[in-house]
Amino acid sequence: MGASEGDDTVGAFLPGKRVHIRGRAQGPLAELTFAAKDLFDVAGYPTAGGSPDWPRWYPLPTRHAWSVQTLLDAGATLVGKTITDEVSLGLRGENAFDGTPLNTAAPDRVPGGSSSDSAAAVAAGQCDTALGTDTGGSVRVPASFCGLYGLRPTHGRLPLEGMLPQAPTSDTTGWFARDAETFARVSAVMLGEAIPTALPTRLVLAVDAFGLATPEAQAALGAQVKLLTGLIGATREEILAPQGLSVWARAQRTLQPYEAWTTFKDWVERDNPRMTFTVARGLIAGSQISAADRGWAALMREEARARLAYLLPAGTVLCMPTTPFPAPTRGLPITETDPLRDRITCLAAHGGLAGFPQVSIPGASVDGAPVGLSILGPRGSDATLVAVALALEKAA
Amino acid sequence: MGASEGDDTVGAFLPGKRVHIRGRAQGPLAELTFAAKDLFDVAGYPTAGGSPDWPRWYPLPTRHAWSVQTLLDAGATLVGKTITDEVSLGLRGENAFDGTPLNTAAPDRVPGGSSSDSAAAVAAGQCDTALGTDTGGSVRVPASFCGLYGLRPTHGRLPLEGMLPQAPTSDTTGWFARDAETFARVSAVMLGEAIPTALPTRLVLAVDAFGLATPEAQAALGAQVKLLTGLIGATREEILAPQGLSVWARAQRTLQPYEAWTTFKDWVERDNPRMTFTVARGLIAGSQISAADRGWAALMREEARARLAYLLPAGTVLCMPTTPFPAPTRGLPITETDPLRDRITCLAAHGGLAGFPQVSIPGASVDGAPVGLSILGPRGSDATLVAVALALEKAA
Repeated sequence: MGASEGDDTVGAFLPGKRVHIRGRAQGPLAELTFAAKDLFDVAGYPTAGGSPDWPRWYPLPTRHAWSVQTLLDAGATLVGKTITDEVSLGLRGENAFDGTPLNTAAPDRVPGGSSSDSAAAVAAGQCDTALGTDTGGSVRVPASFCGLYGLRPTHGRLPLEGMLPQAPTSDTTGWFARDAETFARVSAVMLGEAIPTALPTRLVLAVDAFGLATPEAQAALGAQVKLLTGLIGATREEILAPQGLSVWARAQRTLQPYEAWTTFKDWVERDNPRMTFTVARGLIAGSQISAADRGWAALMREEARARLAYLLPAGTVLCMPTTPFPAPTRGLPITETDPLRDRITCLAAHGGLAGFPQVSIPGASVDGAPVGLSILGPRGSDATLVAVALALEKAA
Repeated sequence: MGASEGDDTVGAFLPGKRVHIRGRAQGPLAELTFAAKDLFDVAGYPTAGGSPDWPRWYPLPTRHAWSVQTLLDAGATLVGKTITDEVSLGLRGENAFDGTPLNTAAPDRVPGGSSSDSAAAVAAGQCDTALGTDTGGSVRVPASFCGLYGLRPTHGRLPLEGMLPQAPTSDTTGWFARDAETFARVSAVMLGEAIPTALPTRLVLAVDAFGLATPEAQAALGAQVKLLTGLIGATREEILAPQGLSVWARAQRTLQPYEAWTTFKDWVERDNPRMTFTVARGLIAGSQISAADRGWAALMREEARARLAYLLPAGTVLCMPTTPFPAPTRGLPITETDPLRDRITCLAAHGGLAGFPQVSIPGASVDGAPVGLSILGPRGSDATLVAVALALEKAA
């Protein structure tokens, strides 16, 4: 359900972060409600970024983030700010300060992060769409875990003004929806481009990516893959990462944490902020990455970009599992979450590394818990990926 | 002022940690009030250890810590639990979760830690004495910064049951008082030994330790050093650490963080607790210390013990500044607190490394802010050090 007029209390949203800003009358998204991850500025409301100590450092916003303004201008009404992993560092969606949003599709499991509550709120029907951010998987992972449509746009395509950065060479915005039609309406506004009717004509199945998913997830995604091959036609199998998905993950986990440290260093050193242990650990790991390692990772990034450009000429899309498995259970110890995170990163790293657009599509599940199928396309083909999602929903 | 009967609300103490347990009638400490650092178990009250996430892990105490029971048995009344640096990791006394206790002697400066609020509450007159712990300086530093008497007992002398450990080969309990007479009464009970009247007959001035203090602190301590040499007589100058105070500090900062990581690893890995960045950084640094480095530090510990045994035969005491300067101002950035901490550790490391008893004595100040003079003695000479403190107060 969307929030009704005057209703600014929405259960899953950040306590004390009640926001209700009506969108422009009669825009293309009129009647829709949206929420914004607490990394996006909303004028007059502190941007906390999931940390109790970020607002002390970051001035009270005086204008809306570009993404927020774009949705308001299109008529959508902002009904809440949503919980995020601390300063967007995390893929689980567990925030010890703000709480862990409920994954209504799988209540005993994490929602995925870092855009945890944006996904959770859409999945729970508390708003029609929600803004997230995706640096290393933060839209795609919760879309997969909560059973939603989610887009990570082409890197560099959309303005990021008013969005709390993490690692600028990987940072993107993104958004979620429960159904393909809403997803398409929101995407057309955000991308500033109509969703095409023509579909791609060639499909690549990323066999190494499917190979890294659990057998159960592979089996669960089979029906959608079959539909997709039926829709698009010419299908061939390829390796996504000849150098190794784990090597791409390693490169991303070299570049991204170093940039994150660069982004947050002044804040951390000035304010000694509170954070969960793993967040501090990630920042410290970033601070310790050598120039030699970064040099290697930058070369691997070029190789990854070249590989995706080769695999994805115009008219081609690639499909792969968004995550290797559904959401893990809540409250696992670090010793169990670390290897899961590393495995998720193997499938997500190409996004931050190469910057190609990706849509995660719901529909499959393992033991009742959602797992997403992803479609990638050439840089700039974001709207075509949304068209594929629409066509797939109609074909299902 | 002590808390009056039925008064269990004491300003500086932990909010929500109101405790009021009357001591045995007519013990030697009857009429005295005390507070206990939140690292000591009080039956029926959660031991939080300065962390919002420790009580989830640590069972609700069903009996008092040995130190708490000893003071209650002697007639003192427990009036509060006090703020500590998180799980005793810190020398500044700034706790972002529980707050930074007010250093009444120097309100714009930190109280020192980790027994921050035990010192602050005694200094503010909210109780007569207070229990602290000292692993790497956590009693001595706040005693120096708040202008109090403070004892770090001989390592291994007093039972630590019911005290949250950090690095067992360095951990001790400790306590504070505003005046030497109260300090002596409490010390006699805790040590289970009368305070002697005979004083040591030889005094060693640790020239390298004085050399590491600021010129202002050296000058401020001059009057007390002169009194002390007058009291004791035979005085000679010696180097405390021929290998270097900074080398001793390095050895302690090798052994202690590794042990702390060992102590807290299971908690951290199971619960991913919230902590300030520097606390997480310290734990991670501890986890990364190599066996080779620990092997070296263990040898340096033996050299330090041998050196102190050589300098401190029976009848001898050594004096040195407790800290190289008065308390730093509150809220400094990490980049400024790190070098200050390293300098403080140069003067404090011998305690955890060699385990000899040490009393910090108030009286000196720089720009109105207290700085303590320390007296060390042979292992087991704790009561004699208290006797020196008493004699010095009478002579002043």
